[in-house]
Amino acid sequence: MSELTLYSYYRSSAAYRVRIALNLKGIDFDQSIINLKKGDQHSSYYQNINPQGLVPSLETDQGLLTQSLAMLEWLEDTYPKPTILPGTPWQKAKLRSLAYQICCDIHPLNNLRALKYLQDEFDISDNAKSKWYQYWLVTGFKALESELNEQPFCYSDQPSIADICLIPQVFNALRFNTDMSSFPKISRIYHHCNTIAEFKAAAPGNQPDAL
Amino acid sequence: MSELTLYSYYRSSAAYRVRIALNLKGIDFDQSIINLKKGDQHSSYYQNINPQGLVPSLETDQGLLTQSLAMLEWLEDTYPKPTILPGTPWQKAKLRSLAYQICCDIHPLNNLRALKYLQDEFDISDNAKSKWYQYWLVTGFKALESELNEQPFCYSDQPSIADICLIPQVFNALRFNTDMSSFPKISRIYHHCNTIAEFKAAAPGNQPDAL
Repeated sequence: MSELTLYSYYRSSAAYRVRIALNLKGIDFDQSIINLKKGDQHSSYYQNINPQGLVPSLETDQGLLTQSLAMLEWLEDTYPKPTILPGTPWQKAKLRSLAYQICCDIHPLNNLRALKYLQDEFDISDNAKSKWYQYWLVTGFKALESELNEQPFCYSDQPSIADICLIPQVFNALRFNTDMSSFPKISRIYHHCNTIAEFKAAAPGNQPDAL
Repeated sequence: MSELTLYSYYRSSAAYRVRIALNLKGIDFDQSIINLKKGDQHSSYYQNINPQGLVPSLETDQGLLTQSLAMLEWLEDTYPKPTILPGTPWQKAKLRSLAYQICCDIHPLNNLRALKYLQDEFDISDNAKSKWYQYWLVTGFKALESELNEQPFCYSDQPSIADICLIPQVFNALRFNTDMSSFPKISRIYHHCNTIAEFKAAAPGNQPDAL
């Protein structure tokens, strides 16, 4: 048995981030599946693990941790090599800025619970829901695209916290049929990362609970 | 003239976070006001500073930085004392988890641009908009309240990144008439922080652009 257990769901973008980071750092981990489609996240069992009822959670020898970005920072502090925050403090800040643009300004507006609220409470059409999704995604990707350079990864020649957050968001965008032709740099980084074993092994389709 | 200029708006929760951190670390800074009500954030002038058109941005001797959380981490790396991330890696992770619960799972759903989209595109009533606001706030605060202890600050006996993110969110909640009676720990920390000069000086009402 591993020291770390990730409470995960194959399609959760936030869990996907942590799977990539664990793989890049070569850390063995177990997965405990929380089926978001079936509503496992609302069970009292899971609420005791994660009071927000969100996926992922990480069980460690020091206790339980919530929030994927907190897990990435803790993994970096605890298992520093290979780093996912390379460079000077300034370079780290730029990488974190890219990561937060995705994790704060795209993902929360487009995740399952936000879309469910729109549908259940405002009774909007599928078309309006899709427009909302695409609006936040495209707004966020436009800014990101303008900030990327010609490096193989985001802002660096090695994979970092920015790529760890970007790849799951692009996977999600493609699942929602987003036209990626306006985002050549993002697309290039996505395809490049998907040639790397640690990213591939973390992909939704390669998880034990993938349908 | 200071080395740091914060592009700020008095009511922006994210700018408020950075003002608190700068004050706690005793760093002198200038403010350049971006009036969100007048739409200054959409000007081409500001888009060149911040491609997302969001407030805040931080101008440093190394360049421009976006994303308030990236600024907090960069300030911690660059001006380590006094720390806003005290403790062991595990304690830092717990503090970051609290901060991200606010910055990823409450604030983005309740900020100006999200509320504006709901109003403009879905033509929802003021009542429905208020229900949306309170839903994400109360959902987030319930989880937070359950994770806090009896320390004077969040999870620690000194102010940290978690308090820096919490105080502006409570300020915002009060502005939207949220009933805080279910959140005694959050309320206690809010009132305690507001007795501290560095927090008070960062409050919206004490900014040069406050109405």
